[in-house]
Amino acid sequence: MLQRVQTTDGRDLLVRCEGDALVVLGPWDAGRVLDAVPDASGERLDPGATTPLPFLRDGAKILCVGLNYRPHIEEMGREAPEFPTLFAKFVDSFVGPADDIVRPADVDQLDWEGEIGVVIGAEVRAASVDDAADASLGAVALNDVTSRGHQYRTTQWLQGKALDSLSPIGSTVAPLHDDLTIETRVDGETVQHGSLDELVFGVADLIAYCSSIVRLRPGDIIATGTPGGVGHGMRPSRHLQPGQLLETELGGVETLRNRVR
Amino acid sequence: MLQRVQTTDGRDLLVRCEGDALVVLGPWDAGRVLDAVPDASGERLDPGATTPLPFLRDGAKILCVGLNYRPHIEEMGREAPEFPTLFAKFVDSFVGPADDIVRPADVDQLDWEGEIGVVIGAEVRAASVDDAADASLGAVALNDVTSRGHQYRTTQWLQGKALDSLSPIGSTVAPLHDDLTIETRVDGETVQHGSLDELVFGVADLIAYCSSIVRLRPGDIIATGTPGGVGHGMRPSRHLQPGQLLETELGGVETLRNRVR
Repeated sequence: MLQRVQTTDGRDLLVRCEGDALVVLGPWDAGRVLDAVPDASGERLDPGATTPLPFLRDGAKILCVGLNYRPHIEEMGREAPEFPTLFAKFVDSFVGPADDIVRPADVDQLDWEGEIGVVIGAEVRAASVDDAADASLGAVALNDVTSRGHQYRTTQWLQGKALDSLSPIGSTVAPLHDDLTIETRVDGETVQHGSLDELVFGVADLIAYCSSIVRLRPGDIIATGTPGGVGHGMRPSRHLQPGQLLETELGGVETLRNRVR
Repeated sequence: MLQRVQTTDGRDLLVRCEGDALVVLGPWDAGRVLDAVPDASGERLDPGATTPLPFLRDGAKILCVGLNYRPHIEEMGREAPEFPTLFAKFVDSFVGPADDIVRPADVDQLDWEGEIGVVIGAEVRAASVDDAADASLGAVALNDVTSRGHQYRTTQWLQGKALDSLSPIGSTVAPLHDDLTIETRVDGETVQHGSLDELVFGVADLIAYCSSIVRLRPGDIIATGTPGGVGHGMRPSRHLQPGQLLETELGGVETLRNRVR
């Protein structure tokens, strides 16, 4: 697993997680390092002396996939879609794995959407599914936190998805495998749970499809969709309230813990 | 007016247009220079010895506004919208003012949407309309070239809007004024014509609204919407064909000339 951390003396580093230690690979620079992850420098860090930072390159494209979990589509009584539904978020929409989520005054229907993000590791354009499978660096935890009020103001969801600094993303990138799980908890209560093998459009399919639209570069992110259990779908509907703790766990990899303020 | 140009010896520069000359302000660096455009260096260039480059910062956010021209809304018999419809494009969606538009094999309904783009000149977040009015650097010509087939595959337009290297953007940023015009021509035939005073949501309103969603940074772009006259709305509908010349003219400022291949 790879991680981005800040040291107590302010260095921004890419490290490899080895047992209980972090092995320094070099300065954080997603655009460069993902093409060719450097060898270890020899320096080892105590994780307790570091702060995890978002594994998110400045200027990265973030492509998000709509309805993509088979059980959720079936429970909604819908047909499997022919094409992935894609929308965007911005780098500025994100915060780090332990940051507070500061709810703006004009947002009152704030909802969770825990997701497995795929970090792109190579430049690809119009890739075959086989080539696409080789183009991912791995999986990262993220939560596509959404303002439902903004989302449904118009037909286009962007403004409900892109709000500044509302969506947590992890520091750690882990190898992809089919039984990777994503779980969302609110004040300790599990509200969402899904695994990668439930996707209608799998990771290689998504990379290939997205690359048929626009070139993907190292450090770009594809958010693969959210399992059932969002607050908007509950009766009565539920929304994140100030004081609540939102946890987003990528099984065996990292748990994002973000307090709503 | 400001322009981004490349010299014959490969320098990427920000220049000021003064009469028939270009006065070099310094190396192109939108994120830096827009905060404080430098004084002239004293070097002057012959425009004929330069190549215009897209006035687009790496990693810029590009926020596009849907239906926003009053005459077009009226001709469609619609009500004026309460909120701007927003969607995104990516930096990788764009080409320069004289580049070819290479139509991919899987795109057969390629349409034009000439637009006035607003280049942001200061970082703003949740700006008042008054503050927003001061946050623009000026206007740039762009064409939100759209694959209608992709746009309507799902409810979200992104995949029809974000296609790689299909959308031209200008090199030149000019002061904003109400009678600034945008015109689209296909093989010399005028198909769209509009002016900034026809917008439902004006420039300051759009900057303020977008900044209520996400912080805007120097070099970010708001595409203000397209006038009536897109090919998709014609009967029979029309689409860009290989060999055709697409021209997008920001009146008195710059004309983008892009050949479809």
